[in-house]
Amino acid sequence: MTAIDGSNILAELRETLPENTLITDTGLMETYRTDRAMFCDAGMPLAVVRAQCTADVVAAMKVANKHGVPVVPQGARSGLSGGANAIDGCLVISLEAMDQIVRIDQANRYVVTQPGVLNAVLARAVAEHGLFYPPDPSSKEFCAIGGNLATNSGGLCCVKYGVTTDYVLGLEVVLASGEVLRTGRTTVKGVAGYDLARLFVGSEGTLGIITEATLRLRAAAERPKTLAATFADADDAARAVSAIVTSRVVPSLLEFMDRTTVQTVNDQFHLGFDSDIGAVILAQSDAGGIAGGAEIDSIATILREAGAVDVVLAETDQEADALLAARREVLTALETMGTTLIDDVCVPRDRLAELVAGIEKISANQRLTIGVVGHAGDGNFHPTVVFNSDDDDESARAYAAFDEIMMLGLELGGTITGEHGVGLLKRGPLTIEIGELGLQVHRDIKKALDPTGILNPGKIF
Amino acid sequence: MTAIDGSNILAELRETLPENTLITDTGLMETYRTDRAMFCDAGMPLAVVRAQCTADVVAAMKVANKHGVPVVPQGARSGLSGGANAIDGCLVISLEAMDQIVRIDQANRYVVTQPGVLNAVLARAVAEHGLFYPPDPSSKEFCAIGGNLATNSGGLCCVKYGVTTDYVLGLEVVLASGEVLRTGRTTVKGVAGYDLARLFVGSEGTLGIITEATLRLRAAAERPKTLAATFADADDAARAVSAIVTSRVVPSLLEFMDRTTVQTVNDQFHLGFDSDIGAVILAQSDAGGIAGGAEIDSIATILREAGAVDVVLAETDQEADALLAARREVLTALETMGTTLIDDVCVPRDRLAELVAGIEKISANQRLTIGVVGHAGDGNFHPTVVFNSDDDDESARAYAAFDEIMMLGLELGGTITGEHGVGLLKRGPLTIEIGELGLQVHRDIKKALDPTGILNPGKIF
Repeated sequence: MTAIDGSNILAELRETLPENTLITDTGLMETYRTDRAMFCDAGMPLAVVRAQCTADVVAAMKVANKHGVPVVPQGARSGLSGGANAIDGCLVISLEAMDQIVRIDQANRYVVTQPGVLNAVLARAVAEHGLFYPPDPSSKEFCAIGGNLATNSGGLCCVKYGVTTDYVLGLEVVLASGEVLRTGRTTVKGVAGYDLARLFVGSEGTLGIITEATLRLRAAAERPKTLAATFADADDAARAVSAIVTSRVVPSLLEFMDRTTVQTVNDQFHLGFDSDIGAVILAQSDAGGIAGGAEIDSIATILREAGAVDVVLAETDQEADALLAARREVLTALETMGTTLIDDVCVPRDRLAELVAGIEKISANQRLTIGVVGHAGDGNFHPTVVFNSDDDDESARAYAAFDEIMMLGLELGGTITGEHGVGLLKRGPLTIEIGELGLQVHRDIKKALDPTGILNPGKIF
Repeated sequence: MTAIDGSNILAELRETLPENTLITDTGLMETYRTDRAMFCDAGMPLAVVRAQCTADVVAAMKVANKHGVPVVPQGARSGLSGGANAIDGCLVISLEAMDQIVRIDQANRYVVTQPGVLNAVLARAVAEHGLFYPPDPSSKEFCAIGGNLATNSGGLCCVKYGVTTDYVLGLEVVLASGEVLRTGRTTVKGVAGYDLARLFVGSEGTLGIITEATLRLRAAAERPKTLAATFADADDAARAVSAIVTSRVVPSLLEFMDRTTVQTVNDQFHLGFDSDIGAVILAQSDAGGIAGGAEIDSIATILREAGAVDVVLAETDQEADALLAARREVLTALETMGTTLIDDVCVPRDRLAELVAGIEKISANQRLTIGVVGHAGDGNFHPTVVFNSDDDDESARAYAAFDEIMMLGLELGGTITGEHGVGLLKRGPLTIEIGELGLQVHRDIKKALDPTGILNPGKIF
């Protein structure tokens, strides 16, 4: 690549972009360097474009394309894999100011939204119309829809309602050339041509920049009924999960916390669990009314029969909210104990016991605390390594444990990432998972859509 | 392209493929020339490979790739768009003999299957294990899973359960090079790399040949409760559909038949509908038990309030089965009246009344019978033009009506194909729907995966 003339490019950007859209101040740019992933490289951008509309993205992309400048798209920078980290001399295109909900169509149950809208903001806006946007990452209050699309985010309700891609009807995407592709539809079904929308979903900004999305909605769910089941050990809890997922009941939430994570949030959220508890399962039914009552009772019965020490139904909304809040805050709570490395393996749901046992072994071998929390109903777990990052030896063991957990996930027939994405963090293990031919197909597709390789280069693969 | 030396290629195929796999007899090859689409060009293959296993597909593809011979993959040839039609001098690779269900995993609720398994055969096999594979095209007894994947088939249960792509976890695909790509996973979630599996789904054999699929299953649904609602005219029925799809109830089936189609099947299936009925809606709930009863009652109430003349619950399974059989046999019944051209538009669900009114206008202008039947809950309709194909003028008017219906679908914000695919039949209208840039992206992706263009060339675009 020939040397890039930064001043020339900045002059062109100033010419084509509205005032206040372009940030070149080093101090201001500092906050745009990274997402929430730890230990991933991050460079200093040449400039940050805070796009206000699709035309701004187009203008910035055309300049970048002309000069071969790498472009890093960013949403709310809440990612956990470094996928949004800046590259030295790149143009960061931030979508956070494109935060308008364009249209809520009640008759056809979809929403058209800009990418900068926060997940929870979108969910609340459609709820006002009696509608429901299910994908709910734990970070829902501070992650944006654009990032959810880029990583195909999951969340707590996936066990019943699926992940982000299951709600994508259509997309507007700015391609590497600066051209604007509209793909997909507003209808429920459609098979006219390739499913390009779902190719962009989960591509982590390496194939195009999503500037608008048409997302399918459901009728509002009923206020859920919530239960907590305690187990003597994680093995019993794992068997209980298998019993639920092979039953006729589909809970709207089925979460798992191991001893470490339960104890970490127990005091803070006044959960009142005994200190000798080995694992907790949280479950919900949002079927509502009599059906909901019957469903949560079925779940309770299955959990008891599978060996739960105790199953308690939340009697008030406050009690239920506290349980869920505790679950969502596990990562934050673990962070108070040290530096954390959060993993994201997903395994077949009957391998959970083996996963937990394997992680206990890794924890013992590496002499490190590893808290295991996750979306049990999906087999998607976030084993989180806690360590002292000032201690080089401990840090080395933490990285080793993190990698070992991924390899364990693969051995159990799973994947290295259930919902966080590959970003910078998991590029190595990705090759192991998808193989050389898989990687070659990725490269071929990337080249087809981004021939000069300017879109988020070095991410995923 | 340089002239292809057929005898040389046949010799190589004979050398690498097992005996009985290769068909070169012109009479035998005749049946492999077309799918069920009318009026689409079909050539004569150089040879047909009846693959018994992935290795056969690989061997055939390598020979084809070496010599630049076009390859046309075929399942059960039940398609309605000519996507599986042979090309002169091509190698047809038939997957119909790869008809084994490889594994049913009850604990993790998925099935691994070869592509030649018929849809209904797969559904019955998993049902024996208390499991449910929802996608159910009307052709389910004679269409294969491979074809379902190639066209991303829908069916009658989509309104509640989605389409084929929603059930795809992983695929084995033979690429144009003859290499075997395994993509996707057996876990519920996973975001390691691009969603290649869903790119192959719906690509109609133009990007690779699917030789194995891992498909998600659900717990068996309850025996459904069925109702039939009659309406004075299609407009009332359309409003009733809107009332259902904006309510809290999600029926497991919501089908529409207009006056023409009802009368066509009324006598044959002893349905006993009055001859002055303007439209019929069929609905089901598979919620089961008390919930199912409550759900079908809710649907009945909504339909009555929306202006149904009469709402009748099927009292016996036989009655329900007759209603559904009648619905599934509409096309066959229309075929007894003349040659048929079956369309497949999908519109936003609040535009149904406009679609039906527009089709009535087209029918009057072109002086042709057009029966409208479809998956009302998805907005996906199959307006079917009936005509005398011996009459050139009438045939011309039939083609014109067929095209006008697609354009009407697009005008109403819909798509030219909800579930049948583009094939040869809808290549022209596809460009109108996806635009020049969309088409260019399709070409770029096709070129990335099939650089010499041997995979089902001329299909889709």
